[in-house]
Amino acid sequence: MTHDCSFLDDLDLDGAVSRGSSDRKNHAGDFGTREADEVEPDAVVFAASTADVAAVVGAATDHGVPVTPYAAGTGLESNATPVEGGISLSTVRMDTVLEVRPDDLQVDVQAGVIGEDVNEALARHGLFFPPLPSSGAISTIGGMIATDASGQQTVKYGEVADWVLELEVVLADGSVVELGSKAAKTSSGYNLKDLVVGSEGTLGVVTRATLEVAGRPEQVKGGRAVFATLADATEAISDAVTAGVDVAKIELIDDRTALLANTYSDTDLPERPMAFVEFHANHGIDEEIAFCRSVFDAHGLEEMEIASGEAMERLWQARKDITYAAEEYDPDLDIGPPGDVTVPISRYPEMISEVRAVAERYDLFVPCFGHAGDGNLHYFVLADYDDPEEAARAKEAYGELVERAIDLDGTATGEHGVGVGKREYLELEHGEAAVGAMRAVKQALDPRNTLNPGKVIPPE
Amino acid sequence: MTHDCSFLDDLDLDGAVSRGSSDRKNHAGDFGTREADEVEPDAVVFAASTADVAAVVGAATDHGVPVTPYAAGTGLESNATPVEGGISLSTVRMDTVLEVRPDDLQVDVQAGVIGEDVNEALARHGLFFPPLPSSGAISTIGGMIATDASGQQTVKYGEVADWVLELEVVLADGSVVELGSKAAKTSSGYNLKDLVVGSEGTLGVVTRATLEVAGRPEQVKGGRAVFATLADATEAISDAVTAGVDVAKIELIDDRTALLANTYSDTDLPERPMAFVEFHANHGIDEEIAFCRSVFDAHGLEEMEIASGEAMERLWQARKDITYAAEEYDPDLDIGPPGDVTVPISRYPEMISEVRAVAERYDLFVPCFGHAGDGNLHYFVLADYDDPEEAARAKEAYGELVERAIDLDGTATGEHGVGVGKREYLELEHGEAAVGAMRAVKQALDPRNTLNPGKVIPPE
Repeated sequence: MTHDCSFLDDLDLDGAVSRGSSDRKNHAGDFGTREADEVEPDAVVFAASTADVAAVVGAATDHGVPVTPYAAGTGLESNATPVEGGISLSTVRMDTVLEVRPDDLQVDVQAGVIGEDVNEALARHGLFFPPLPSSGAISTIGGMIATDASGQQTVKYGEVADWVLELEVVLADGSVVELGSKAAKTSSGYNLKDLVVGSEGTLGVVTRATLEVAGRPEQVKGGRAVFATLADATEAISDAVTAGVDVAKIELIDDRTALLANTYSDTDLPERPMAFVEFHANHGIDEEIAFCRSVFDAHGLEEMEIASGEAMERLWQARKDITYAAEEYDPDLDIGPPGDVTVPISRYPEMISEVRAVAERYDLFVPCFGHAGDGNLHYFVLADYDDPEEAARAKEAYGELVERAIDLDGTATGEHGVGVGKREYLELEHGEAAVGAMRAVKQALDPRNTLNPGKVIPPE
Repeated sequence: MTHDCSFLDDLDLDGAVSRGSSDRKNHAGDFGTREADEVEPDAVVFAASTADVAAVVGAATDHGVPVTPYAAGTGLESNATPVEGGISLSTVRMDTVLEVRPDDLQVDVQAGVIGEDVNEALARHGLFFPPLPSSGAISTIGGMIATDASGQQTVKYGEVADWVLELEVVLADGSVVELGSKAAKTSSGYNLKDLVVGSEGTLGVVTRATLEVAGRPEQVKGGRAVFATLADATEAISDAVTAGVDVAKIELIDDRTALLANTYSDTDLPERPMAFVEFHANHGIDEEIAFCRSVFDAHGLEEMEIASGEAMERLWQARKDITYAAEEYDPDLDIGPPGDVTVPISRYPEMISEVRAVAERYDLFVPCFGHAGDGNLHYFVLADYDDPEEAARAKEAYGELVERAIDLDGTATGEHGVGVGKREYLELEHGEAAVGAMRAVKQALDPRNTLNPGKVIPPE
């Protein structure tokens, strides 16, 4: 679908408009988009200011042209693919940390700033932004807000939404609003701020955010724990969380994932289920670690290594390498879309068993790992996606696990968002009436369907 | 305005319909409604089930009759006053704690359950619901959700919204939806759950909630600290919070409020500004208290008493009695609507100075106190509200403080909600376009304006 975007040339933009083939190609998909599913936008606008975003969105609505916001393109569900063509609206130039206010534990940033750049600015004040996802070194704050991202530290600090106080947002008609408040709490009017967070650019384009931040902990230690069985490991993690062990990170990898890591790095990790942990405290960290160890011991802990600084990072390396290790494991196999289901923590052991059962039933290699403290499980269905039969089988296995998570009172996506790929599960998870209410809200705020059409809400 | 509610008699309800004068009178207002502003509903429905709520709301929409949800009636902004008549929909009979799931740190409750009753059920499992407001012994979970209530422990644990995982909600057309997820986090679809939280029953009627809960801390200590000046006290509190002192409560009262407390209880508290603190920990509580004291010392701390158990409760008594003390201070003076402004914590000292300046300028007695750790300031403009000149002066003083809070990047209401009384400040705080977006959302979800009309959104 192509759209006449010539109206862009009449706008008085600080930023640039590009129709060049490499810019269009670069904005045709994100990390989660297979090449065959890429769609090139008709034009890319590199907005330099909120005024640019407002001018483009307002005019696009007037002309009936779709606008798909584009941040760093690290989305995993084609969240930023312009599936109906039109304009890809890049925020990459809006990358300024505007103001750090240590006395309020707040920072104002433009939407296009990279997560780690925020942390760099905060570090000078002894502060940090806790809910940064694993992609924080390459993904933007605006993108994290769009998907309500979260990550390894969510078990202690919550998700991105919990740290967003105020948003500047451009609505579909081009008006600019401030949602939320710089006050620590408010009960003033409808909470449109948290409606926009996680809406993947379909209700408005985030241009600026006021984030809450935290003081850096004085003590940091962490490492890994090895268990005999996957059941032991998952139950140990579940118990540690409900017993109130104050972990900053608590991650799981299964034995298959340990095998991937060994293959990738030529290491000799025990090919058994492992929990990776990290602790943050201002005092008493060793007491907390001892508490954690006592819970793990009750679940057949085999060994636990704890360190700090670089030694800790080395213990964690296998966890950090997972995606690369899975991608490189076998040149004939692709990893497919990463599973991102989340279930109540008491159902986590069941969810893991289900991954095993499905892998066996479909005769596929399905390593799994995840932010176990939140009940968030990632999995890769490794398959030859160029073979139609195998691709279909892999897709079925993948979908069966999503459905199983929903059965277990869980959600289709814990942190990646719906994008294109998860739309088909939305009614199963939320029911027809709730999806109808979502559709009504979209219609109310974006009546001409300008903003990121084809995402989140399934077709009627 | 009266409405024909005879359709209620055709519904097959488990609950009761009352048109009795005492039931109508009892649902004509809430704690914040002056007698002259009360409006009796045409009928009161005591719903016994979600099906009852759905039947009443659906039929009321069909008949164009307003429905105002009524919980315990402890609102302070006439949030539950049926200003356009119609039906008052009481959830008081829906008061069951449905299921405690300790392994998930979750509890399912009906909307009409009293806060402390939830805590009683949780206590048997060593758990508690942390964000309970000060009214928790008399107010319902549904009411707390409706206003996104918070309280003394919000500085450590957050507000009610942060602990609501999933809601069962009856929409204006009578459909029943589940919003949110029992998973600890989700990025699946629009966050309508947090849109309904704080919407004061204007977008849907909450019938059931899944709440997250926490383990009870093993160590609890607290007490009070006396400062020479109000500036010292506010700066000490602000510094303690930003320095990362892990307080569970940190409250302020000014010298005028200390005077009220002495008058009320015939005590001899120092009539100086005081901070009330409480600490929760599983280990290391004394280290944390020492850290707090060191911060306070740097701001002219005069004395600090810390205790546990009943001795701690006694130290806190003056804080707990404030509202009663203010009401009884002078039989000729009424307390008026309680101020509920919230500002970024660095602006808290300025906000307090403004209260002093306004009190002096308007020649009124304005004691103030509040959840200082969140920047939430309550104040009473004591005046003879039966004297039209004095009432007008008091109203002006009250409003000037709300406007000043908004100037200071704050909010008109930190926890009481908008109701009727704060509607006039909504555009000043959020701007016309944002209020327009709120109005569009209301129109989308409740096109016939059935649900709690006349609240939150100002008239166009």
